[in-house]
Order: sequence, then structure tokens, then C-alpha cells
Amino acid sequence: MKTIAIVGVGLIGGSFALRCRSLGWAHTIIGVDNNSVHAAEALNRGLVDQMASLEEAVSKADLIVLAIPVNAVSAVLKTILSQIDQQVVMDMGSTKSHITHAVNDHPKRGRFIASHPMWGTEYSGPAAAVENAFQGKAVILCDADKSDSDALELAVSIFKGLDMRIIHMDAVDHDLHAAYVSHISHITSFALANTVLEKEKEDDAIFEMASAGFESTVRLAKSSPEMWTPILMQNKENVLDVLNEHISQLRKFKSCLEKENWEYLNELIVNANQIRRIIK
Amino acid sequence: MKTIAIVGVGLIGGSFALRCRSLGWAHTIIGVDNNSVHAAEALNRGLVDQMASLEEAVSKADLIVLAIPVNAVSAVLKTILSQIDQQVVMDMGSTKSHITHAVNDHPKRGRFIASHPMWGTEYSGPAAAVENAFQGKAVILCDADKSDSDALELAVSIFKGLDMRIIHMDAVDHDLHAAYVSHISHITSFALANTVLEKEKEDDAIFEMASAGFESTVRLAKSSPEMWTPILMQNKENVLDVLNEHISQLRKFKSCLEKENWEYLNELIVNANQIRRIIK
Repeated sequence: MKTIAIVGVGLIGGSFALRCRSLGWAHTIIGVDNNSVHAAEALNRGLVDQMASLEEAVSKADLIVLAIPVNAVSAVLKTILSQIDQQVVMDMGSTKSHITHAVNDHPKRGRFIASHPMWGTEYSGPAAAVENAFQGKAVILCDADKSDSDALELAVSIFKGLDMRIIHMDAVDHDLHAAYVSHISHITSFALANTVLEKEKEDDAIFEMASAGFESTVRLAKSSPEMWTPILMQNKENVLDVLNEHISQLRKFKSCLEKENWEYLNELIVNANQIRRIIK
Repeated sequence: MKTIAIVGVGLIGGSFALRCRSLGWAHTIIGVDNNSVHAAEALNRGLVDQMASLEEAVSKADLIVLAIPVNAVSAVLKTILSQIDQQVVMDMGSTKSHITHAVNDHPKRGRFIASHPMWGTEYSGPAAAVENAFQGKAVILCDADKSDSDALELAVSIFKGLDMRIIHMDAVDHDLHAAYVSHISHITSFALANTVLEKEKEDDAIFEMASAGFESTVRLAKSSPEMWTPILMQNKENVLDVLNEHISQLRKFKSCLEKENWEYLNELIVNANQIRRIIK
């Protein structure tokens, strides 16, 4: 590749750019970002060689990577697909059904790769970008049969080059599973933060006493609303389904406490311990 | 000190023992544990020099440390207080009201230090003990005015020696704050694990896709029921209060999704972001 365009030079786009640079994958990396502060920061950190308008960047790039909030992806993606010929476009959003649905009938659909690298942190913007973000992580490629084989090959070689495990899945399944393994975690964390902020008026006490356990359950609550409101919007049905189940699971704990049913409380915890089967 | 007795040679007791040994604080460390597998493991890992019965250990020790599930503390503590003369007894449990209440009228109350080191992991048993567990963490000393001044001085010197920040608090306040910064995190994590285990039947999908975000919100779900059922029992009122608030905060997210009230959803996330004020 000669030129890579990164649309959205934040946490994900910036981290991808850093790694591309370090691996020498492109002569030139062009950034595109509406946020002028982020644009300046991306240049300053050397994430990209230059900033440009979307149109200019797309016209010059062999590969275009979209790393913007999911509510912005569909429109930008359509614009790009209508502009390109044989270039490849890849998005990295956390929802897939909405985005793939928006472009499935586009004559250039084959040039698009719907991807979701399973990595992120609670921070955002180019300052949060880190080089070894993706290493050893999974990446989901959705509806790959709708992509041209050369475009898919390029994407696979890129993710393998990033040392990622490639998983194929259709977009609908992706969104269902993502609701369980990522989206609900964010909601519980946001709600836990709001609980503590609402009820615990002594900041000092939280600050002094908060241990690693609290930090780990609440850290996702620092995640950006610009990213997460659109994700929850686009995956509304799945998220609601998981959220309803989660509330009903919490009500079981509540009922055990209210009724002093310690035996059942113990069972609930023993059952939860089975998560060890899945996460080490 | 010549001899320290550690009652309960698990995660907390074992970690404390390791550090005492490394700092050369005792000629002899005696372990007490009902669980014969844990007893053998503690000897095997060199956490303690010998295992003994409670009575024998207490008769030989200058300092007795209780690191057993909170439902067992009160009875054992009373037994110990009735046996000792000038020795010091310290517990390390996650609840404090129940325990202090049980011994407040004991003639030897002054020899007891109610402490709660704010450290733990989701693992348990002597195999989980680590040497630098407590370093840089907070320890809450409760109702310190009810302890004899020499006993308190010893406890303070120990926790300073462990490089911990000492916070004084009354037992009732401790349990209230602990519900917010620790106990609710465990319930949300247990409930999240149960949610995923209930609804997501494809273990492989979770396993492959689970990212750091999921792991961090769910890891406490691996915590032991032997520890946590008693903690939730003893802190029932505070935990119920926080849990009710937490469910009502989750219902706000649910309502936003159902009503497609994206503006309010965004506000909820912006509000949650204020947790940055408290945790870095």
C-alpha cells in the first residue's frame, strides 16, 4: 500500500495508524477528522503524516479505514463507496447490522469490509492511542461473503499482520453477541457510577476506600457518550433483551436479601462462579 | 513480636503472613485453619511455620489475626478474647458493625482492633496469597477509641509497616461506604455473569469475543460464595439500599432505550463520566 486514510484519528484510528506506521505498511498516512483539536493532536503525536478533507484523503488512499462513532459510519461509508473505484474501505465500529444494512445494495459493496476489532479502553481521542492495542485480540469480520475476494484478502493480511485472531460471523449474530460481551458491561458500569454518585455523597470516602474491585467494575463508566449513545441506539433490541435479563438477575439478589434467603443467595453466587469456564 | 497467629490462611491471611515473614516481624508464624487442604498448602508454600489448633495458637501468639469469612468472626473472636490476657487480636473482615457489636461489651474489648484492609482479588485460598497485596492500599480502622492505646499503636505500626494508608471510621459508616465501593460491585458482577450464562448459550462466542471490558466488569463474579454470602448477609440493609438505587438507575437506561430517548441516554452517560472525579 502506498497511502492509508484514517477517518477518525481517535483511540481506535490512532492506534491503528501507530501500528501501520511502525510496521512500515504505508508511505503516507492521511488523517481525516472533523474535530480540529484531535486533528492537531494526531499530527503532533505523529499518528498521521497529514490531515486532509475526506474527499482528498479518499482520492489518494489505497485503503480507507473508518474509525468514527457508529452513527456517522453509514453516511460517510456511502459517500466513500460512491467515490472509489478499486480501493478498499474498512470500518471498525462496535455495531454491524445497521452499517452493513445501509450499504448492502450499493454497487460498490464488494469493496467494503465490515470489521470489529475487540479492543478498546474507557479513554478516547488521539491522546489515548497506543501502538500495541490490537495484538493478540480478536477481530470479527462480518458478512465477508459480500466483500470482493481481493478486498477480503487485504483485510485478512492486515489483521494477521496486527497479530489478531480473525473470526467470521454474520452481522446479525455479531450484534447479538456484542450486546452480551461488551454493550451490557458498559450499561452496568454507567449505571453503577450513577448509583454511587447519586447515593454516596462523600466523595472522600469513595476515593479513600475504592479498591481494585470497584475500579474494575466502574472504569467503563468513563467511556465517551459520543461513542456509546450511538452504539446503544443501533443495537437497541439486543441490548434491551440483555438488560431486561440483567435487571431480573439483580432482582433475584434483591429478593434473597429481602427474604433472607441465604441458601438461594449462595446458589446465585455459585452459579455466577461458572463464568470461570469462560474467562480465566 | 515473637509469634503471630493467623486464623484463616487464605488469600488475606496468607498474604499478610507472607509479608510479615519477609519483613522479619515474627520468629514464628502459626496458622490455624479448619480446611485441611488449605492447611497443607499454607505449610507447603511456607506461608506459616506450623499449623496448630486455635487454642494452642492463641496461647503462644503475641498477635492474633483473624482472616476468616465474616460469619465466623464473632464467635471465634469471643473465644479468643476470653482466652487472652494482654495479646492483641485483629480481624480483617469486610463488614464491621456486626462484628464490633458482638464484642463491644466484652471485658477484653480493648485488646481487639477492627480492621478492613481494602484489598482483595476474585481468588481465594492460600494459593492466591501474594506478598505485596497491601502495599499502597487503604486500611480502615473502626471504632479505634474502643481499643486499648497499646493495641492500637501496634496495629498502626503494622499497617504503616505494610505501607498502607490508615483511615479511621466508625463501624456503621464503614459498612455504609463498603456497600457502595465494594459490595454492590460484587453483586453487579455476579448478576452480569448470571445474565450472560443464562442468555448467551454460545460459550465459544463469549470466549472468542470477550474483551478487556467484559473481563473487568465480570471478574469479581469469580469471587467465593463462602466469603461473599456472609458479607451480604451482615450488610443486608446497606446493600439493599444501594441495590435498589442501582436497579432504578438501570431502569433509566432501559426506559431510554424503549422510548428511544437518546438525549436522556446521552445525559445519563455524561453523568456517569463524572466518576472520573473519583477514580483516575
